[in-house]
Amino acid sequence: MTFSLTILGSGSAIPTLTRNPSAQLLNVHEKIFLIDCAEGTQLQLRKFKFRLQKIDHIFISHLHGDHFFGLIGLISTLHLLGRKNEMHVYAPAELEEIIDIQFKASGTILRFPLIFHYLHQRTSEIIYEDKNVKVRSFPLNHSIPTWGFVFREKQKERNIRKDFIIEKNIPVTEILKIKKGEDYVDENGKIYKNPEITLNPQEPRSYAYCSDTRYFEPVIPFIKDVDVLFHEATFMQDKVKNAIENFHSTAIEAATIAKKAGVNKLIIGHYSARYKNAELLLSEAKSIFPNTILAEDGLKVDIDMDINRN
Amino acid sequence: MTFSLTILGSGSAIPTLTRNPSAQLLNVHEKIFLIDCAEGTQLQLRKFKFRLQKIDHIFISHLHGDHFFGLIGLISTLHLLGRKNEMHVYAPAELEEIIDIQFKASGTILRFPLIFHYLHQRTSEIIYEDKNVKVRSFPLNHSIPTWGFVFREKQKERNIRKDFIIEKNIPVTEILKIKKGEDYVDENGKIYKNPEITLNPQEPRSYAYCSDTRYFEPVIPFIKDVDVLFHEATFMQDKVKNAIENFHSTAIEAATIAKKAGVNKLIIGHYSARYKNAELLLSEAKSIFPNTILAEDGLKVDIDMDINRN
Repeated sequence: MTFSLTILGSGSAIPTLTRNPSAQLLNVHEKIFLIDCAEGTQLQLRKFKFRLQKIDHIFISHLHGDHFFGLIGLISTLHLLGRKNEMHVYAPAELEEIIDIQFKASGTILRFPLIFHYLHQRTSEIIYEDKNVKVRSFPLNHSIPTWGFVFREKQKERNIRKDFIIEKNIPVTEILKIKKGEDYVDENGKIYKNPEITLNPQEPRSYAYCSDTRYFEPVIPFIKDVDVLFHEATFMQDKVKNAIENFHSTAIEAATIAKKAGVNKLIIGHYSARYKNAELLLSEAKSIFPNTILAEDGLKVDIDMDINRN
Repeated sequence: MTFSLTILGSGSAIPTLTRNPSAQLLNVHEKIFLIDCAEGTQLQLRKFKFRLQKIDHIFISHLHGDHFFGLIGLISTLHLLGRKNEMHVYAPAELEEIIDIQFKASGTILRFPLIFHYLHQRTSEIIYEDKNVKVRSFPLNHSIPTWGFVFREKQKERNIRKDFIIEKNIPVTEILKIKKGEDYVDENGKIYKNPEITLNPQEPRSYAYCSDTRYFEPVIPFIKDVDVLFHEATFMQDKVKNAIENFHSTAIEAATIAKKAGVNKLIIGHYSARYKNAELLLSEAKSIFPNTILAEDGLKVDIDMDINRN
């Protein structure tokens, strides 16, 4: 089952012709989650050939424009294209009013339910859950209330060996018990231990998003051991004062968080527009955390235990 | 002196990879006027190599998203780039609150004065004037209050023949009078009639913008005889019912307005996304008004009497 991330915008506050500001798409078993939605995100979705109507859940980390100015346009387009399905937005409460007054001014009455779920200051909570994934919010350290999000796939049931099911003609009720870890007892009273007749399921996969934030160790427990961490890296280390003043991080700081949290892979992004060559940021990050890659608009990362944990 | 129009977005409500929604740039003697500002306009400005900070006046025709969703992002970028100069926005009053609550949510205090000039319902008025140009708003017929804008260059003074100034060594005070149309009397009392010693100045140029609107003849007096008219043409004639229902125009209707107003050149645009090939709209419009061209993103039109009035 799919668990993949696509970077729709890798830049910071000012859009450029090569880097859109923040937006990402996470595909968890074909359920599509949009994370942040800068101006131009709907066009990035088209450019990278995603179907807009497949998005049902949008997570907005905070209310700086480079993380949400594209939301009103995306919602407007979904409406014009005839959307009927619910759309859920997880965001600071003020965003609902911002969206509402714009639709009021344009005389628009949405044809689909737009449901806001407010993020609460200074708390971490499970904000979304379905049979495959849980999403937790957690506070970051930025100039306005800002949240990170961690997506953790749920533990799968054990896989029964198919040859065993056929050989013993096992009834469905027993199959369900075996998948949950029980042993099997046949009609002669013979016991088959669970580990002999099942295979380990794929380990749950996980993705964490931290943008925008100062270097902030309190995030570590929330993002502990994730397969892939996106962490903003607005500045290089010689600009650490700018990072502190502007509530952002350096590439070294992002890498330090990745290392301390024991994550598998780090993606850095949200680069200041001053850096024409993000390779310089990458080499600083790699000096601390070698398994780091650069976010680029359109980059797709398949988050798969087998690939990422070796 | 320059009088030129650049189409930044030629599409209608839904942005596509080939047509951004409405935005245009008018250069009048190197003063830059932005007309409408859809999502993505700041990137269109970069793409077509305009300097963002040269814009001091922005005209917003109405509060449908495809005409203003890009304003907040543009203003935000100008702020981040260190703008100090005043920015004037001519728009329906509700836009000020829409901009204000977004900057309040992001904790942004603009470093430059952002001055709103409200458009008033159902009236036409001079909304801007400088030594070179007057801008008049006028009501259109759309589902929400919507205005057109007409930019008319002021009448220039007469040009004195340089050979005459040199030959007669004419003092500056006299030159100013002659430019205004007076005759010249030399020290011997000899009268030189003004038309003999001056040349006609270039005729004032003009541009009118009509988007979005139903077919609406009351606009004709305001746009009478302009050099270039932009008129929306959302639909082809077989969809005239859709045009009426949605308060838009067909290409034929746009051309009929152009003909009745005696304009020189018509640009049609704001095409429904259903038309992959705008040539069909063009051929309908040309059947009524031959001097019609299609708006395309990036199209530049130099509005010059000598070129356009032949």
